[in-house]
Amino acid sequence: MKKIEGGVTAAKGYQASAAAAGIKYQGRTDMALVYTEKPAVCAGTFTTNVVKAAPVLWDKEIVAKGAPVHAVVLNSGIANACTGEEGKQQNAAMAVAVADQLDIRTEEVLTASTGVIGMQLPLEPLQKGAVLLKQNLSAGREAAEAAARAIMTTDTVPKEAAVSFEVDGVTVTVGGMSKGSGMIHPNMATMLSVTTTDAAISREDLQELTKEAVADSFNMISVDRDTSTNDTYLVLANGASGITIQKGMKAYEDFKEALNYVSTELAKQMAADGEGATKLFEVKVVHCESREKAKTLGKSVITSNLVKTAVFGSDANWGRILCALGYAGVPFNPEIIDLTLEAEGTSLVLVQDGVATDYSEGKATELLSKQKVTVICDMKEGDSSATAWGCDLTYDYVKINGDYRS
Amino acid sequence: MKKIEGGVTAAKGYQASAAAAGIKYQGRTDMALVYTEKPAVCAGTFTTNVVKAAPVLWDKEIVAKGAPVHAVVLNSGIANACTGEEGKQQNAAMAVAVADQLDIRTEEVLTASTGVIGMQLPLEPLQKGAVLLKQNLSAGREAAEAAARAIMTTDTVPKEAAVSFEVDGVTVTVGGMSKGSGMIHPNMATMLSVTTTDAAISREDLQELTKEAVADSFNMISVDRDTSTNDTYLVLANGASGITIQKGMKAYEDFKEALNYVSTELAKQMAADGEGATKLFEVKVVHCESREKAKTLGKSVITSNLVKTAVFGSDANWGRILCALGYAGVPFNPEIIDLTLEAEGTSLVLVQDGVATDYSEGKATELLSKQKVTVICDMKEGDSSATAWGCDLTYDYVKINGDYRS
Repeated sequence: MKKIEGGVTAAKGYQASAAAAGIKYQGRTDMALVYTEKPAVCAGTFTTNVVKAAPVLWDKEIVAKGAPVHAVVLNSGIANACTGEEGKQQNAAMAVAVADQLDIRTEEVLTASTGVIGMQLPLEPLQKGAVLLKQNLSAGREAAEAAARAIMTTDTVPKEAAVSFEVDGVTVTVGGMSKGSGMIHPNMATMLSVTTTDAAISREDLQELTKEAVADSFNMISVDRDTSTNDTYLVLANGASGITIQKGMKAYEDFKEALNYVSTELAKQMAADGEGATKLFEVKVVHCESREKAKTLGKSVITSNLVKTAVFGSDANWGRILCALGYAGVPFNPEIIDLTLEAEGTSLVLVQDGVATDYSEGKATELLSKQKVTVICDMKEGDSSATAWGCDLTYDYVKINGDYRS
Repeated sequence: MKKIEGGVTAAKGYQASAAAAGIKYQGRTDMALVYTEKPAVCAGTFTTNVVKAAPVLWDKEIVAKGAPVHAVVLNSGIANACTGEEGKQQNAAMAVAVADQLDIRTEEVLTASTGVIGMQLPLEPLQKGAVLLKQNLSAGREAAEAAARAIMTTDTVPKEAAVSFEVDGVTVTVGGMSKGSGMIHPNMATMLSVTTTDAAISREDLQELTKEAVADSFNMISVDRDTSTNDTYLVLANGASGITIQKGMKAYEDFKEALNYVSTELAKQMAADGEGATKLFEVKVVHCESREKAKTLGKSVITSNLVKTAVFGSDANWGRILCALGYAGVPFNPEIIDLTLEAEGTSLVLVQDGVATDYSEGKATELLSKQKVTVICDMKEGDSSATAWGCDLTYDYVKINGDYRS
C-alpha cells in the first residue's frame, strides 16, 4: 500500500469540480461535484440522529436500492435539515439540476449538505451552481482539492487522503475527501465524506467494508459530542482499474487496508481541525479485555470537556482522564491502570497502578504543548486495544459557536 | 410546605461549623462539619463512577450498615480520589480526628472530599481543622452558611435551601447545603450535598425517598457531562422534632415534597453556578410518551456543547436543540415538534411542527439574554414531562479549566 497525493480524483475515471453558487456564503466556493462516467457501485453510512437532513433521506434510499450511481453533489452553508417538505423538494431540485447538466438520471445523483440547520436551500443558486459544476469538471488533482475546499464550513483546511496498491501489476487506487469541524461525534462525526475507488467490487462487499472502515475511523473521533443531522459517508467504486476485488483474494485485504487507511486519515484530519482546536489529541487504550470496551473507554476520554480544556492548557491533570475512564460505563480496576503521555517520540509515565508517579510537571507540560499529544491508558487486563482521536477545547470553540450561527 | 431561610442547621438538633485548616487553599475555610447530638438515621447516594474517592468508599460502607450517625466532616481543595491505600488511611484519619473531638465513635462520622484528584490529604491540617471545627460548632444560621461556604471549590456562591411543614401543629424541617460547579453531570453531579431533617423516619424509607429526590434533581443537571469520582449526597434524620414519618401518612407525602424541594433547589443552584456560567438554562420536555424518555431528551439538550455555546451567545440556534434531541438515543417524530423559548414570563415559539416559525430574531436574542432561559420541547406524543437544568458554555469555563489545576 502506497500513500499518494490526492483526493476523490486519484482513482481512475473520476472527475470533480467546485463552484461559487452563492447559496449562503459569499466570495467562496460552496458547491462540489464528484462524477464518474462509468457507473459506480455505491456504499454509504449515515447519521444515527433521529433528525435526518433531506439529503440523508435521499441518499439512504438510493444506497438501499443498490442501482449504480454517477455523481455526488454537495453544498456547504445550509444543511437542509429540519426543513420539512420544502426541504425535500429543494434537495430533489439539486439532484435534478445536476442530472440535467450531466445528462444522467436524477436517481443516479447522490446529494449531501452541510451548514446551518433550519434554513431552506435557495433554488436559483443551486441551478446556477449546477451549470458551473459541469463546466469546471476535471480529473486533475486541483479539481479534487477545489471540491474538498468547497464543502468546508468552519473547517480551516481541506481534507484529502489517497493510497494505491498493486494487483497483478495493475494499480488500484482509493482516494477520498471529507469535511467536518464542529458537531463532530462518533455515530458518525458531523461530516460529509466521499471516497472513490477504481476497483470493481460487489455492492454487498463494499457496504460491509465501508461499515468496518467507519467503525475504526469516523466513529472514533469527536470534537464536541454532538452528532449531526447530516453525516454522510459515501464510497463509490467504478471498476475503471479493470481489477475486480472479491472475498478470499489477497487484493480484498489490500483494498480493505486501503479503505481503512483513507477513512482513518480523513478522520484524524477532522479531529485535528476541530472547531477552535490547537492540537490533535489521541487516546490509545491498550491491554483491554475487549476491543469494544477499549473503544468505549477511549471515546469517553476524548469527549470529556475537562480533559479537553486541560489539554488546551497543557496541564497534566491526569485525574480527569481516570475520571473520564471511570464514567465510561464499563467496569475495570482503577488500581492497576498506568497512564503514559507521548509526544514527538518522547514518553512520560504519569500514573502507575492507579496513583501518580513522581513525574516532572515541567516535562509533562512540555509534551502537552506539542501539536499532537497521545495518552496511553494501559488497563492491564487483556489483549485488545483501540485508538480514539479528539482535540482540545479552547476559547475559539466558544467563540466560533457562541458568536454567530455556524 | 413553607420555604424558609437556612441550610443544614435549619432542622432541630443540628449544629455546623467551618474551619480554615490550610489543606490546600490558603486564606479561606476548607473544612466543614455537620453534627447532630441525637443519633441520626442516614441515607445516601454516591457517584456511579468506577473510580471512587476514598470518602465515597467509606460512606457507602457506613450507609449500607445502617447504624446511626452523628457527624459529617467535609473538606475542599483535595478530592482524595486516585490516592490508593494512603488515601484510605488519610480519610480514616479525618474521621478519627473528628470523632476524637466530638467524643463519638469513628464509624459514626461520614466523610466527603472535593478538589484536585490524585493528591494526598495532609495529616496535620486535618487534625488542626478538627479542633477548630469542634470549637466553632453552632446551631445558628451563620454556622450553616459558613459550612456551605467552606466546601466550595470553583463555586462562586454557597448553596443552601430549607423548607418546613406542619404535622399536628408541630413543625418539621428539611434543610440542606451543597457544592458543585465543575465536573457536574447526572449520575450524579460532581457534588457534595448534606441535607438534615428533624423528622424521625426509618432508614429504608429515607433511602427510598432520597433516591427518588436525586432522580429528579441532582441527576437532572449538567455543567460539563463529567461525572466525578466524589459525588456524595447524604440525608440525616435525627427525629428531634418528635414527629415520626411513616408510609401511608399525609406527612409522608409532605416530607417527600420537602425533600424533593430542597434537592431540586440545590441542584438548580449548582447548574446556575456552573463553572464560567452566565445563565441558568432550563429545558422542559412536555407531552412525551414517558417520563424516562422526557428525561433522556432533556438531558441531551442541556449537555450539548453546541446548544450551550449558542445560549452563551444568545443565538436562537434552535437547529442545535433539535439535533441534540435527535441523538439522545430515543425515537420520536421530528416533524411534529414545537420549540418555545421562555424568559421572565415572555414566550416565543421558534419551531412549529418541526420547522421554523417566522419569529423575530431580535426578540429571541432578547429572551436569551436573560439570566434564566427556558426552552420547552413539546413532543406532542403523550402525557409525560421532565425538566433538566444546565448552563451556558463560556470563555470562562475554558479559562477556569485550562488555566490551572482545579
